[in-house]
Amino acid sequence: MTTLPKTVVLLSGGLDSSTALAVAKRDGFVPYALTLRYGQRHAQEVEAARRVAAAAGVAQHVVLEVGLGALGGSALTADIAVPKDRDITGAGPIPVTYVPARNTIFLSYALAWAEVLDASDIHIGVNAQDYSGYPDCRPEYIHAFERMARLATRAAVEGGQALRIHTPLMELRKHEIIALGHSLGVDYGLTTSCYDPTPTPDALACGRCDACQLRLKGFADAGLRDPVAYAEAVATDLTSRR
Amino acid sequence: MTTLPKTVVLLSGGLDSSTALAVAKRDGFVPYALTLRYGQRHAQEVEAARRVAAAAGVAQHVVLEVGLGALGGSALTADIAVPKDRDITGAGPIPVTYVPARNTIFLSYALAWAEVLDASDIHIGVNAQDYSGYPDCRPEYIHAFERMARLATRAAVEGGQALRIHTPLMELRKHEIIALGHSLGVDYGLTTSCYDPTPTPDALACGRCDACQLRLKGFADAGLRDPVAYAEAVATDLTSRR
Repeated sequence: MTTLPKTVVLLSGGLDSSTALAVAKRDGFVPYALTLRYGQRHAQEVEAARRVAAAAGVAQHVVLEVGLGALGGSALTADIAVPKDRDITGAGPIPVTYVPARNTIFLSYALAWAEVLDASDIHIGVNAQDYSGYPDCRPEYIHAFERMARLATRAAVEGGQALRIHTPLMELRKHEIIALGHSLGVDYGLTTSCYDPTPTPDALACGRCDACQLRLKGFADAGLRDPVAYAEAVATDLTSRR
Repeated sequence: MTTLPKTVVLLSGGLDSSTALAVAKRDGFVPYALTLRYGQRHAQEVEAARRVAAAAGVAQHVVLEVGLGALGGSALTADIAVPKDRDITGAGPIPVTYVPARNTIFLSYALAWAEVLDASDIHIGVNAQDYSGYPDCRPEYIHAFERMARLATRAAVEGGQALRIHTPLMELRKHEIIALGHSLGVDYGLTTSCYDPTPTPDALACGRCDACQLRLKGFADAGLRDPVAYAEAVATDLTSRR
C-alpha cells in the first residue's frame, strides 16, 4: 500500500489559498493546513480558514500567531488606512498593503512544520499576475526560497527527498483561479478577501479595497456570481460602474 | 555628515549573539536588536537579551513571540528531555535540541524588520565550528538565504542597497568567540547559554547540557573564567573531570 505524500498548505482563508488547497488534494497530497495570524486586522480571515479547512477535510489545521504587527510597516498590520477605489489595472508602486517579508516568514513556518511532519512538499497560492507589485509573489523569489530551504533542514544533512514548493496559481489570472476552484468544488462562500470589512459579527466585504476589486472583477470575468456578501451601498455602486 | 548604517542583530541573550552584537557595533553599525521567543523553555534567555541590549545601548530592542512550540519537534520547544553529559567532541547526528527551520524563521523576521527600518544589513551569531550538526548554521545555507532575501523585498523591485547577512562568528571556535567578545568588552555575566537551567528566579545553568559543556570548555580554552553561576554540585563535578 502506498502512503499518500503529506503537504503543508498555507491557508489564509482567502480565495487563492483555498484554491491552492483544492489543487493539492486533486494532485494526491494529504493536506496539513497552516494559517498564520498577524496584526490586528484580518481576524475574519482566520474564521474563513477554519471553515475552508473543515470543508476540505484536512489532516490537521494549525493556526499560529506571528508577531508581525510589532514590526509595523504595512496597512495590514499597523494603523495605516487601507486605500479604497484605487485603479487596480495599472502596475504602479508597491501598495501600502504590502507586508514586509510576509511570504518569507509564512514559508519559513511552513518549512518548519514540513520538517516536523516529515513532509517534502509545501503549497502556496501566490500568483504573479494580479500581484505584480509584490516582490515575494514572483517565480524567481519562490525558486530562491526553495533552494535555500533545501539547505536549511535535516534532509540537507541526513539525506532524503528534496523539498518542493508548489505554486499552482503562479501564472493564472484571478478569473482563471476562480474557474479552476469552481471546477474543483471550492465553496468560495466560505472564503474572505476584503482588507477592510465592516465590524464583526457581520464582517461584510467593503467592495472597494484592492482585494475586493480584484475579486469582484475575477468573478465577473469568470462569468460566475461571488457568493460572499458585500456592504449594500458599495455593491450597488460597483454594479452601476460596470 | 554621514549617517551610520542600521543593522538588525538577532539577539538570543546567549554568548554568540551577544558577541555578534559587539562586532556589529565595532564595525560601525547602529544596532537594532531582535529577540524571538519560542516555546516554553528559554524564558531566561529573553531576560538575558534585555540585559545585553541595554548594556550595548542598542537603538531599539524588540522581543517577539514566535509560535514554534505549536509545531513541536524539538527538545527546546516540546516536552522532550534535554540530553545531559553528552560527548560534545564527536560529530554525531543532529541533536534533539535542533529546532526545525529555526534560523530560517529568525532570519525572516530580521528581514521583515530590516525592510521596515530601511536597513540593508543583518547580523547573526551562527557558527559552523561548534554546531556542525545544525544544517542552518552552515555558510552555504546563509548564502542561499541572502540570495533569496535579495529577491524578497521592496529593494528587489524598486532598487536600492542589496541586503547583506553578516556572520562574523562563522569560522570561529567557541574559545575564539569568547576571546573576541572579551576584547570588545562584552560582559558575559549578562548572558545565558543553558538549555535546562534550575527553576527561576535563580535560573542557574545546569553545566551538563551541550550548551553548558561547550561554553565551559570555551572559557577554559580561552583561559578565562565564566562569570555566570552554575548549579554547585555540577560545577564541582566539572572541575573534577578536568
